[in-house]
Amino acid sequence: MKSSERPLIFVTNDDGVQAAGIAALIRLAAEFGDVVAVAPNESYSGMSHSITMHRPLFVSKVSQTDGVEVYSCTGTPVDCVKIGFDEILGTRIPDLVLSGINHGSNANVSVIYSGTMGAATEAALYGIPSIGFSLTDHSPAADFTASVHYARQIIGQVLAMPAESLAGLCLNVNIPNIPQDKIRGIRVCRQTRGNWREDFVHRTDPNNRDYYWMSGRFYNFEPEAEDSDEWALREGYVSIVPVQMDLTDYQRLDTLRSYLGE
Amino acid sequence: MKSSERPLIFVTNDDGVQAAGIAALIRLAAEFGDVVAVAPNESYSGMSHSITMHRPLFVSKVSQTDGVEVYSCTGTPVDCVKIGFDEILGTRIPDLVLSGINHGSNANVSVIYSGTMGAATEAALYGIPSIGFSLTDHSPAADFTASVHYARQIIGQVLAMPAESLAGLCLNVNIPNIPQDKIRGIRVCRQTRGNWREDFVHRTDPNNRDYYWMSGRFYNFEPEAEDSDEWALREGYVSIVPVQMDLTDYQRLDTLRSYLGE
Repeated sequence: MKSSERPLIFVTNDDGVQAAGIAALIRLAAEFGDVVAVAPNESYSGMSHSITMHRPLFVSKVSQTDGVEVYSCTGTPVDCVKIGFDEILGTRIPDLVLSGINHGSNANVSVIYSGTMGAATEAALYGIPSIGFSLTDHSPAADFTASVHYARQIIGQVLAMPAESLAGLCLNVNIPNIPQDKIRGIRVCRQTRGNWREDFVHRTDPNNRDYYWMSGRFYNFEPEAEDSDEWALREGYVSIVPVQMDLTDYQRLDTLRSYLGE
Repeated sequence: MKSSERPLIFVTNDDGVQAAGIAALIRLAAEFGDVVAVAPNESYSGMSHSITMHRPLFVSKVSQTDGVEVYSCTGTPVDCVKIGFDEILGTRIPDLVLSGINHGSNANVSVIYSGTMGAATEAALYGIPSIGFSLTDHSPAADFTASVHYARQIIGQVLAMPAESLAGLCLNVNIPNIPQDKIRGIRVCRQTRGNWREDFVHRTDPNNRDYYWMSGRFYNFEPEAEDSDEWALREGYVSIVPVQMDLTDYQRLDTLRSYLGE
Protein backbone atom coordinates (compact mmCIF):
# COMPACT_ATOMS: atom_id res chain seq x y z
CA MET A 1 0.00 0.00 0.00
CA LYS A 2 1.34 3.38 -1.01
CA SER A 3 1.54 5.31 2.24
CA SER A 4 1.53 8.71 0.54
CA GLU A 5 -1.92 8.40 -1.00
CA ARG A 6 -5.27 6.71 -0.62
CA PRO A 7 -5.24 3.03 -1.58
CA LEU A 8 -6.80 2.02 -4.89
CA ILE A 9 -9.44 -0.66 -4.36
CA PHE A 10 -10.85 -2.71 -7.24
CA VAL A 11 -14.31 -4.18 -6.62
CA THR A 12 -16.20 -6.88 -8.50
CA ASN A 13 -18.76 -9.63 -7.87
CA ASP A 14 -20.70 -12.41 -9.60
CA ASP A 15 -24.29 -11.39 -8.83
CA GLY A 16 -24.06 -8.50 -11.28
CA VAL A 17 -23.43 -4.78 -11.08
CA GLN A 18 -27.00 -4.08 -9.96
CA ALA A 19 -26.88 -6.36 -6.88
CA ALA A 20 -27.36 -4.98 -3.37
CA GLY A 21 -24.22 -6.80 -2.19
CA ILE A 22 -21.80 -4.98 -4.49
CA ALA A 23 -23.45 -1.64 -3.75
CA ALA A 24 -22.76 -2.21 -0.05
CA LEU A 25 -19.16 -3.27 -0.79
CA ILE A 26 -18.48 -0.24 -3.01
CA ARG A 27 -19.75 2.12 -0.31
CA LEU A 28 -17.55 0.37 2.25
CA ALA A 29 -14.47 0.36 -0.01
CA ALA A 30 -14.85 4.11 -0.53
CA GLU A 31 -14.26 4.59 3.22
CA PHE A 32 -10.74 3.21 2.69
CA GLY A 33 -9.66 4.51 -0.71
CA ASP A 34 -10.42 5.29 -4.33
CA VAL A 35 -12.65 2.68 -5.93
CA VAL A 36 -12.87 1.23 -9.44
CA ALA A 37 -15.63 -1.37 -9.76
CA VAL A 38 -16.05 -3.61 -12.82
CA ALA A 39 -18.83 -6.16 -12.49
CA PRO A 40 -20.89 -8.41 -14.77
CA ASN A 41 -23.96 -6.87 -16.42
CA GLU A 42 -26.08 -9.77 -15.16
CA SER A 43 -25.80 -12.64 -12.66
CA TYR A 44 -22.84 -14.94 -13.24
CA SER A 45 -23.34 -17.12 -10.16
CA GLY A 46 -21.68 -20.51 -10.33
CA MET A 47 -19.31 -19.38 -13.06
CA SER A 48 -16.22 -20.44 -11.13
CA HIS A 49 -12.95 -19.35 -12.79
CA SER A 50 -14.45 -19.29 -16.30
CA ILE A 51 -13.33 -16.88 -19.00
CA THR A 52 -15.05 -15.81 -22.21
CA MET A 53 -13.19 -17.14 -25.22
CA HIS A 54 -15.75 -17.32 -28.06
CA ARG A 55 -17.32 -13.86 -28.05
CA PRO A 56 -16.07 -10.33 -27.46
CA LEU A 57 -16.70 -8.35 -24.28
CA PHE A 58 -18.55 -5.04 -24.07
CA VAL A 59 -17.82 -2.58 -21.25
CA SER A 60 -19.82 0.49 -20.29
CA LYS A 61 -19.45 3.06 -17.54
CA VAL A 62 -22.39 2.92 -15.13
CA SER A 63 -21.51 5.84 -12.89
CA GLN A 64 -18.67 8.10 -11.80
CA THR A 65 -18.72 10.07 -8.60
CA ASP A 66 -15.89 11.51 -6.53
CA GLY A 67 -13.38 8.67 -6.14
CA VAL A 68 -15.76 5.92 -7.30
CA GLU A 69 -15.97 4.65 -10.91
CA VAL A 70 -18.37 1.80 -11.74
CA TYR A 71 -18.34 -0.22 -14.97
CA SER A 72 -20.53 -3.00 -16.33
CA CYS A 73 -19.01 -5.81 -18.43
CA THR A 74 -20.71 -8.52 -20.49
CA GLY A 75 -18.29 -11.17 -19.20
CA THR A 76 -17.66 -13.41 -16.22
CA PRO A 77 -16.21 -12.24 -12.89
CA VAL A 78 -12.72 -13.36 -14.00
CA ASP A 79 -13.20 -11.47 -17.29
CA CYS A 80 -14.07 -8.39 -15.20
CA VAL A 81 -10.78 -8.65 -13.31
CA LYS A 82 -8.77 -9.16 -16.49
CA ILE A 83 -10.37 -6.37 -18.54
CA GLY A 84 -10.45 -4.15 -15.47
CA PHE A 85 -6.72 -4.56 -14.83
CA ASP A 86 -5.69 -4.41 -18.50
CA GLU A 87 -8.04 -1.88 -20.08
CA ILE A 88 -9.71 0.19 -17.34
CA LEU A 89 -7.01 0.62 -14.71
CA GLY A 90 -4.31 1.02 -17.37
CA THR A 91 -1.08 1.79 -15.51
CA ARG A 92 -2.79 2.02 -12.10
CA ILE A 93 -2.16 -1.01 -9.87
CA PRO A 94 -4.77 -1.75 -7.22
CA ASP A 95 -3.71 -2.21 -3.61
CA LEU A 96 -6.59 -4.56 -2.88
CA VAL A 97 -9.33 -6.42 -4.77
CA LEU A 98 -12.70 -7.04 -3.12
CA SER A 99 -15.33 -9.40 -4.52
CA GLY A 100 -18.94 -9.63 -3.37
CA ILE A 101 -20.68 -9.23 -1.09
CA ASN A 102 -22.12 -12.44 -2.49
CA HIS A 103 -25.77 -13.29 -1.96
CA GLY A 104 -25.20 -16.84 -0.70
CA SER A 105 -22.50 -18.95 0.96
CA ASN A 106 -19.19 -19.70 -0.70
CA ALA A 107 -17.89 -21.77 2.19
CA ASN A 108 -16.74 -25.40 1.87
CA VAL A 109 -16.03 -26.77 -1.62
CA SER A 110 -18.43 -24.11 -2.98
CA VAL A 111 -15.31 -21.98 -3.31
CA ILE A 112 -14.58 -23.98 -6.48
CA TYR A 113 -17.92 -23.21 -8.17
CA SER A 114 -18.03 -19.60 -7.03
CA GLY A 115 -17.66 -16.70 -9.44
CA THR A 116 -17.08 -14.42 -6.45
CA MET A 117 -14.04 -16.46 -5.48
CA GLY A 118 -13.01 -16.96 -9.14
CA ALA A 119 -12.52 -13.19 -9.35
CA ALA A 120 -10.69 -13.06 -6.02
CA THR A 121 -8.29 -15.87 -6.94
CA GLU A 122 -7.66 -14.31 -10.37
CA ALA A 123 -6.54 -11.10 -8.65
CA ALA A 124 -4.24 -13.11 -6.38
CA LEU A 125 -2.66 -14.75 -9.46
CA TYR A 126 -1.66 -11.21 -10.49
CA GLY A 127 -0.09 -10.78 -7.05
CA ILE A 128 -2.81 -8.40 -5.78
CA PRO A 129 -4.20 -9.21 -2.33
CA SER A 130 -7.88 -10.05 -2.54
CA ILE A 131 -10.86 -10.82 -0.36
CA GLY A 132 -14.13 -12.45 -1.38
CA PHE A 133 -17.06 -11.73 0.95
CA SER A 134 -20.20 -13.86 1.02
CA LEU A 135 -23.30 -13.75 3.22
CA THR A 136 -25.01 -17.10 3.74
CA ASP A 137 -28.34 -15.73 2.47
CA HIS A 138 -29.33 -16.08 -1.19
CA SER A 139 -32.09 -13.49 -1.01
CA PRO A 140 -31.71 -10.48 -3.35
CA ALA A 141 -32.99 -8.41 -0.41
CA ALA A 142 -30.48 -9.89 2.09
CA ASP A 143 -29.50 -7.67 5.03
CA PHE A 144 -25.79 -6.82 4.72
CA THR A 145 -25.50 -4.87 8.00
CA ALA A 146 -23.44 -7.47 9.85
CA SER A 147 -21.47 -8.34 6.69
CA VAL A 148 -20.42 -4.72 6.25
CA HIS A 149 -19.44 -4.46 9.92
CA TYR A 150 -17.11 -7.48 9.71
CA ALA A 151 -15.89 -6.63 6.20
CA ARG A 152 -14.87 -3.18 7.48
CA GLN A 153 -12.87 -4.77 10.29
CA ILE A 154 -11.19 -7.34 8.01
CA ILE A 155 -10.34 -4.82 5.25
CA GLY A 156 -8.75 -2.55 7.83
CA GLN A 157 -6.72 -5.42 9.29
CA VAL A 158 -5.61 -6.59 5.84
CA LEU A 159 -4.56 -3.11 4.70
CA ALA A 160 -2.44 -2.87 7.87
CA MET A 161 -0.61 -6.15 7.20
CA PRO A 162 3.07 -5.99 6.18
CA ALA A 163 3.88 -6.34 2.47
CA GLU A 164 5.38 -9.81 2.86
CA SER A 165 2.11 -11.12 4.27
CA LEU A 166 0.04 -9.46 1.53
CA ALA A 167 1.80 -10.99 -1.50
CA GLY A 168 -0.60 -13.46 -3.11
CA LEU A 169 -3.02 -13.24 -0.20
CA CYS A 170 -6.55 -14.40 -1.05
CA LEU A 171 -9.25 -14.75 1.60
CA ASN A 172 -12.61 -16.49 1.38
CA VAL A 173 -14.75 -14.75 4.00
CA ASN A 174 -18.25 -16.02 4.81
CA ILE A 175 -20.63 -14.30 7.17
CA PRO A 176 -23.41 -16.30 8.90
CA ASN A 177 -26.96 -15.12 8.27
CA ILE A 178 -27.75 -14.19 11.88
CA PRO A 179 -28.18 -10.82 13.61
CA GLN A 180 -24.92 -8.95 14.16
CA ASP A 181 -25.18 -9.16 17.95
CA LYS A 182 -25.41 -12.96 17.70
CA ILE A 183 -22.13 -13.29 15.74
CA ARG A 184 -19.47 -14.66 18.08
CA GLY A 185 -16.41 -13.35 16.23
CA ILE A 186 -13.99 -14.37 13.47
CA ARG A 187 -12.33 -17.76 12.91
CA VAL A 188 -9.47 -18.45 10.48
CA CYS A 189 -10.35 -21.91 9.10
CA ARG A 190 -9.64 -24.48 6.45
CA GLN A 191 -12.01 -25.52 3.64
CA THR A 192 -14.52 -28.14 4.83
CA ARG A 193 -14.23 -31.54 3.12
CA GLY A 194 -17.38 -32.64 1.34
CA ASN A 195 -19.20 -32.45 -1.94
CA TRP A 196 -22.34 -31.12 -3.58
CA ARG A 197 -24.72 -33.81 -4.80
CA GLU A 198 -27.55 -33.12 -7.15
CA ASP A 199 -31.18 -34.09 -7.33
CA PHE A 200 -32.21 -32.86 -10.74
CA VAL A 201 -35.82 -31.77 -11.11
CA HIS A 202 -37.04 -33.47 -14.29
CA ARG A 203 -39.82 -31.83 -16.34
CA THR A 204 -41.20 -31.90 -19.87
CA ASP A 205 -41.55 -28.72 -21.94
CA PRO A 206 -44.59 -27.85 -24.16
CA ASN A 207 -42.75 -29.46 -27.10
CA ASN A 208 -42.39 -32.75 -25.20
CA ARG A 209 -38.69 -32.29 -24.63
CA ASP A 210 -37.29 -33.43 -21.27
CA TYR A 211 -35.39 -30.85 -19.29
CA TYR A 212 -33.65 -30.75 -15.92
CA TRP A 213 -33.17 -28.09 -13.24
CA MET A 214 -30.06 -28.50 -11.13
CA SER A 215 -30.83 -28.67 -7.44
CA GLY A 216 -28.46 -30.07 -4.87
CA ARG A 217 -27.16 -29.88 -1.37
CA PHE A 218 -23.79 -29.97 0.35
CA TYR A 219 -22.70 -33.18 2.09
CA ASN A 220 -20.31 -32.40 4.92
CA PHE A 221 -17.77 -35.23 5.34
CA GLU A 222 -16.58 -33.84 8.69
CA PRO A 223 -19.38 -31.98 10.51
CA GLU A 224 -17.50 -32.02 13.82
CA ALA A 225 -14.20 -30.60 12.53
CA GLU A 226 -13.74 -27.45 14.62
CA ASP A 227 -11.11 -26.00 12.27
CA SER A 228 -13.46 -26.19 9.22
CA ASP A 229 -15.35 -23.22 7.79
CA GLU A 230 -18.73 -24.97 7.95
CA TRP A 231 -18.28 -25.61 11.66
CA ALA A 232 -17.39 -21.95 12.28
CA LEU A 233 -20.46 -20.70 10.39
CA ARG A 234 -22.78 -23.14 12.13
CA GLU A 235 -21.42 -22.01 15.51
CA GLY A 236 -22.06 -18.35 14.67
CA TYR A 237 -18.58 -17.22 13.61
CA VAL A 238 -17.43 -15.34 10.53
CA SER A 239 -15.18 -17.83 8.68
CA ILE A 240 -11.98 -16.84 6.87
CA VAL A 241 -10.18 -19.41 4.70
CA PRO A 242 -6.93 -18.39 3.02
CA VAL A 243 -6.99 -19.73 -0.55
CA GLN A 244 -4.24 -20.62 -3.04
CA MET A 245 -4.41 -21.97 -6.58
CA ASP A 246 -1.65 -24.57 -6.82
CA LEU A 247 -3.88 -27.64 -7.25
CA THR A 248 -0.99 -30.12 -7.20
CA ASP A 249 -1.75 -33.06 -4.91
CA TYR A 250 1.78 -33.14 -3.47
CA GLN A 251 1.06 -36.12 -1.21
CA ARG A 252 0.48 -38.34 -4.24
CA LEU A 253 3.62 -37.45 -6.24
CA ASP A 254 5.85 -40.24 -4.95
CA THR A 255 3.20 -42.97 -5.08
CA LEU A 256 2.24 -41.99 -8.61
CA ARG A 257 5.84 -42.12 -9.77
CA SER A 258 5.86 -45.77 -8.72
CA TYR A 259 2.70 -46.62 -10.70
CA LEU A 260 2.96 -44.43 -13.79
CA GLY A 261 5.60 -44.05 -16.43
CA GLU A 262 7.74 -46.34 -18.43
CA MET B 1 -12.88 -51.81 -10.25
CA LYS B 2 -15.27 -54.72 -10.26
CA SER B 3 -13.12 -57.70 -11.25
CA SER B 4 -16.07 -59.79 -12.42
CA GLU B 5 -17.12 -57.50 -15.23
CA ARG B 6 -15.87 -54.91 -17.66
CA PRO B 7 -15.20 -51.55 -16.04
CA LEU B 8 -17.70 -48.75 -16.65
CA ILE B 9 -15.96 -45.67 -18.05
CA PHE B 10 -17.65 -42.26 -18.14
CA VAL B 11 -16.29 -39.87 -20.79
CA THR B 12 -16.77 -36.13 -21.20
CA ASN B 13 -14.93 -33.07 -22.53
CA ASP B 14 -15.24 -29.31 -22.96
CA ASP B 15 -14.77 -28.95 -26.72
CA GLY B 16 -18.21 -30.45 -27.34
CA VAL B 17 -19.61 -33.83 -28.27
CA GLN B 18 -18.69 -33.37 -31.94
CA ALA B 19 -14.95 -32.78 -31.32
CA ALA B 20 -12.32 -35.12 -32.74
CA GLY B 21 -10.64 -35.39 -29.33
CA ILE B 22 -13.61 -36.96 -27.55
CA ALA B 23 -14.24 -39.32 -30.46
CA ALA B 24 -10.67 -40.62 -30.09
CA LEU B 25 -11.11 -40.93 -26.31
CA ILE B 26 -14.42 -42.81 -26.60
CA ARG B 27 -12.87 -45.31 -29.03
CA LEU B 28 -9.94 -45.79 -26.66
CA ALA B 29 -12.16 -46.16 -23.57
CA ALA B 30 -14.16 -48.87 -25.35
CA GLU B 31 -10.99 -50.98 -25.46
CA PHE B 32 -11.10 -51.09 -21.66
CA GLY B 33 -14.78 -51.27 -20.77
CA ASP B 34 -18.35 -50.15 -21.31
CA VAL B 35 -18.60 -46.46 -22.09
CA VAL B 36 -21.18 -43.79 -21.28
CA ALA B 37 -20.24 -40.39 -22.71
CA VAL B 38 -22.07 -37.16 -21.82
CA ALA B 39 -20.56 -34.06 -23.38
CA PRO B 40 -21.60 -30.45 -24.06
CA ASN B 41 -23.57 -29.80 -27.23
CA GLU B 42 -21.10 -27.03 -28.16
CA SER B 43 -17.68 -25.81 -27.11
CA TYR B 44 -17.39 -24.92 -23.42
CA SER B 45 -13.67 -24.15 -23.39
CA GLY B 46 -12.51 -21.97 -20.53
CA MET B 47 -15.60 -22.80 -18.48
CA SER B 48 -13.58 -23.99 -15.50
CA HIS B 49 -15.70 -25.54 -12.74
CA SER B 50 -18.84 -23.59 -13.68
CA ILE B 51 -22.36 -24.96 -13.27
CA THR B 52 -25.63 -23.85 -14.87
CA MET B 53 -27.92 -22.33 -12.26
CA HIS B 54 -30.28 -20.02 -14.16
CA ARG B 55 -31.62 -22.21 -16.96
CA PRO B 56 -32.61 -25.85 -17.30
CA LEU B 57 -30.50 -28.46 -19.06
CA PHE B 58 -31.58 -30.49 -22.09
CA VAL B 59 -30.07 -33.92 -22.76
CA SER B 60 -30.36 -36.00 -25.93
CA LYS B 61 -28.94 -39.35 -26.97
CA VAL B 62 -26.53 -38.97 -29.88
CA SER B 63 -25.75 -42.62 -30.52
CA GLN B 64 -25.83 -46.07 -28.99
CA THR B 65 -23.74 -48.96 -30.22
CA ASP B 66 -22.62 -52.12 -28.47
CA GLY B 67 -21.23 -50.97 -25.09
CA VAL B 68 -21.02 -47.28 -26.02
CA GLU B 69 -23.76 -44.72 -25.26
CA VAL B 70 -23.19 -41.07 -26.22
CA TYR B 71 -25.31 -38.13 -24.96
CA SER B 72 -25.28 -34.42 -25.68
CA CYS B 73 -26.10 -31.91 -22.92
CA THR B 74 -26.77 -28.17 -23.12
CA GLY B 75 -24.63 -27.52 -20.04
CA THR B 76 -21.04 -27.12 -18.95
CA PRO B 77 -18.56 -30.00 -18.51
CA VAL B 78 -19.30 -30.08 -14.76
CA ASP B 79 -23.04 -30.13 -15.54
CA CYS B 80 -22.37 -33.13 -17.81
CA VAL B 81 -20.73 -35.02 -14.96
CA LYS B 82 -23.52 -34.16 -12.53
CA ILE B 83 -26.43 -34.97 -14.82
CA GLY B 84 -24.56 -37.99 -16.17
CA PHE B 85 -24.02 -39.43 -12.71
CA ASP B 86 -27.46 -38.53 -11.35
CA GLU B 87 -29.82 -39.02 -14.30
CA ILE B 88 -28.10 -41.10 -16.99
CA LEU B 89 -26.03 -43.63 -15.02
CA GLY B 90 -28.76 -43.99 -12.41
CA THR B 91 -27.55 -46.69 -10.03
CA ARG B 92 -24.46 -47.54 -12.08
CA ILE B 93 -21.22 -46.19 -10.57
CA PRO B 94 -18.36 -45.56 -12.99
CA ASP B 95 -14.95 -47.07 -12.32
CA LEU B 96 -13.16 -44.25 -14.09
CA VAL B 97 -13.95 -40.84 -15.60
CA LEU B 98 -12.01 -39.60 -18.62
CA SER B 99 -12.17 -36.01 -19.91
CA GLY B 100 -10.84 -34.81 -23.25
CA ILE B 101 -8.83 -35.31 -25.28
CA ASN B 102 -8.71 -31.53 -25.13
CA HIS B 103 -7.67 -29.53 -28.17
CA GLY B 104 -5.08 -27.36 -26.40
CA SER B 105 -2.86 -27.41 -23.32
CA ASN B 106 -4.23 -27.49 -19.80
CA ALA B 107 -0.81 -27.49 -18.17
CA ASN B 108 0.34 -24.87 -15.63
CA VAL B 109 -2.31 -22.65 -14.02
CA SER B 110 -4.52 -23.29 -17.07
CA VAL B 111 -5.87 -26.20 -15.04
CA ILE B 112 -7.96 -23.61 -13.18
CA TYR B 113 -9.64 -22.18 -16.31
CA SER B 114 -10.10 -25.55 -17.99
CA GLY B 115 -13.50 -27.11 -18.51
CA THR B 116 -11.75 -30.41 -19.26
CA MET B 117 -10.21 -30.40 -15.80
CA GLY B 118 -13.36 -28.95 -14.21
CA ALA B 119 -15.15 -32.16 -15.24
CA ALA B 120 -12.28 -34.35 -14.04
CA THR B 121 -12.08 -32.67 -10.64
CA GLU B 122 -15.87 -32.85 -10.25
CA ALA B 123 -15.70 -36.62 -10.71
CA ALA B 124 -12.94 -36.83 -8.11
CA LEU B 125 -15.13 -34.91 -5.64
CA TYR B 126 -17.60 -37.82 -6.01
CA GLY B 127 -14.73 -40.19 -5.18
CA ILE B 128 -14.41 -41.51 -8.76
CA PRO B 129 -10.86 -41.65 -10.14
CA SER B 130 -10.51 -39.34 -13.11
CA ILE B 131 -8.05 -38.36 -15.80
CA GLY B 132 -8.12 -35.26 -18.01
CA PHE B 133 -6.14 -35.57 -21.24
CA SER B 134 -5.02 -32.55 -23.26
CA LEU B 135 -2.89 -32.23 -26.39
CA THR B 136 -0.95 -28.97 -26.69
CA ASP B 137 -2.49 -28.22 -30.10
CA HIS B 138 -5.63 -26.06 -30.38
CA SER B 139 -6.39 -27.12 -33.96
CA PRO B 140 -9.78 -28.80 -34.52
CA ALA B 141 -7.88 -31.16 -36.86
CA ALA B 142 -5.15 -31.97 -34.31
CA ASP B 143 -3.43 -35.36 -34.67
CA PHE B 144 -4.27 -37.46 -31.61
CA THR B 145 -2.12 -40.49 -32.54
CA ALA B 146 0.53 -39.95 -29.88
CA SER B 147 -2.08 -38.79 -27.34
CA VAL B 148 -4.04 -42.02 -27.77
CA HIS B 149 -0.87 -44.09 -27.43
CA TYR B 150 0.06 -42.51 -24.10
CA ALA B 151 -3.54 -42.31 -22.87
CA ARG B 152 -3.86 -46.06 -23.48
CA GLN B 153 -0.77 -46.70 -21.38
CA ILE B 154 -1.87 -44.39 -18.55
CA ILE B 155 -5.46 -45.71 -18.42
CA GLY B 156 -4.12 -49.27 -18.22
CA GLN B 157 -1.73 -48.34 -15.41
CA VAL B 158 -4.44 -46.45 -13.48
CA LEU B 159 -6.99 -49.30 -13.78
CA ALA B 160 -4.31 -51.62 -12.35
CA MET B 161 -3.65 -49.43 -9.30
CA PRO B 162 -4.87 -50.66 -5.89
CA ALA B 163 -8.13 -49.25 -4.54
CA GLU B 164 -6.43 -47.17 -1.84
CA SER B 165 -4.42 -45.31 -4.48
CA LEU B 166 -7.48 -44.72 -6.68
CA ALA B 167 -9.71 -43.00 -4.09
CA GLY B 168 -10.02 -39.33 -5.08
CA LEU B 169 -7.32 -39.67 -7.74
CA CYS B 170 -7.43 -36.92 -10.37
CA LEU B 171 -4.72 -36.59 -13.02
CA ASN B 172 -4.03 -33.68 -15.35
CA VAL B 173 -2.25 -35.27 -18.33
CA ASN B 174 -0.79 -33.09 -21.10
CA ILE B 175 0.78 -34.45 -24.27
CA PRO B 176 3.31 -32.36 -26.21
CA ASN B 177 2.44 -31.61 -29.82
CA ILE B 178 5.38 -33.46 -31.38
CA PRO B 179 5.58 -36.74 -33.33
CA GLN B 180 5.13 -39.84 -31.18
CA ASP B 181 8.68 -41.06 -31.79
CA LYS B 182 10.05 -37.78 -30.47
CA ILE B 183 8.22 -38.05 -27.11
CA ARG B 184 10.76 -38.97 -24.43
CA GLY B 185 8.35 -40.59 -21.95
CA ILE B 186 6.15 -39.64 -19.00
CA ARG B 187 6.96 -37.33 -16.06
CA VAL B 188 4.87 -36.99 -12.88
CA CYS B 189 5.12 -33.25 -12.13
CA ARG B 190 3.73 -30.38 -10.13
CA GLN B 191 1.73 -27.44 -11.50
CA THR B 192 4.02 -24.72 -12.89
CA ARG B 193 3.86 -21.39 -11.06
CA GLY B 194 2.88 -18.46 -13.26
CA ASN B 195 -0.10 -16.56 -14.58
CA TRP B 196 -1.97 -15.69 -17.76
CA ARG B 197 -1.84 -12.03 -18.69
CA GLU B 198 -4.11 -10.49 -21.25
CA ASP B 199 -3.67 -8.12 -24.14
CA PHE B 200 -7.23 -7.34 -25.13
CA VAL B 201 -7.81 -6.61 -28.80
CA HIS B 202 -9.93 -3.44 -28.81
CA ARG B 203 -12.32 -2.82 -31.74
CA THR B 204 -15.44 -0.79 -32.53
CA ASP B 205 -18.61 -2.42 -33.84
CA PRO B 206 -20.81 -0.99 -36.67
CA ASN B 207 -22.92 0.73 -33.99
CA ASN B 208 -19.85 2.51 -32.59
CA ARG B 209 -19.73 0.38 -29.47
CA ASP B 210 -16.29 -0.60 -28.19
CA TYR B 211 -15.66 -4.29 -27.73
CA TYR B 212 -12.74 -6.43 -26.63
CA TRP B 213 -11.42 -9.86 -27.59
CA MET B 214 -9.51 -11.65 -24.87
CA SER B 215 -6.03 -12.67 -25.95
CA GLY B 216 -3.25 -13.53 -23.57
CA ARG B 217 -0.21 -15.59 -22.90
CA PHE B 218 1.22 -17.60 -20.02
CA TYR B 219 4.06 -16.11 -17.99
CA ASN B 220 6.17 -18.87 -16.48
CA PHE B 221 7.60 -17.77 -13.11
CA GLU B 222 10.00 -20.73 -12.98
CA PRO B 223 11.04 -21.82 -16.50
CA GLU B 224 13.98 -23.88 -15.19
CA ALA B 225 12.03 -25.90 -12.59
CA GLU B 226 12.60 -29.50 -13.71
CA ASP B 227 9.72 -30.83 -11.59
CA SER B 228 7.16 -28.51 -13.27
CA ASP B 229 4.73 -29.58 -15.99
CA GLU B 230 5.77 -26.81 -18.39
CA TRP B 231 9.41 -27.95 -18.18
CA ALA B 232 8.40 -31.55 -18.91
CA LEU B 233 6.34 -30.57 -21.96
CA ARG B 234 9.05 -28.29 -23.32
CA GLU B 235 11.58 -31.12 -22.96
CA GLY B 236 9.33 -33.52 -24.88
CA TYR B 237 7.71 -35.47 -22.04
CA VAL B 238 4.06 -36.26 -21.35
CA SER B 239 3.30 -34.42 -18.07
CA ILE B 240 1.07 -35.84 -15.34
CA VAL B 241 0.07 -33.62 -12.41
CA PRO B 242 -2.07 -35.14 -9.64
CA VAL B 243 -4.75 -32.59 -8.72
CA GLN B 244 -6.79 -32.00 -5.56
CA MET B 245 -9.45 -29.42 -4.72
CA ASP B 246 -8.74 -28.33 -1.16
CA LEU B 247 -7.75 -24.73 -1.92
CA THR B 248 -6.82 -23.91 1.70
CA ASP B 249 -3.49 -22.11 1.89
CA TYR B 250 -2.34 -24.05 4.94
CA GLN B 251 0.98 -22.22 5.20
CA ARG B 252 -0.83 -18.94 5.94
CA LEU B 253 -3.17 -20.18 8.67
CA ASP B 254 -0.97 -19.35 11.65
CA THR B 255 0.17 -15.96 10.34
CA LEU B 256 -3.39 -14.97 9.53
CA ARG B 257 -4.58 -15.89 13.00
CA SER B 258 -2.13 -13.32 14.35
CA TYR B 259 -3.38 -10.53 12.05
CA LEU B 260 -7.12 -11.18 11.84
CA GLY B 261 -9.82 -11.52 14.40
CA GLU B 262 -10.78 -9.72 17.49
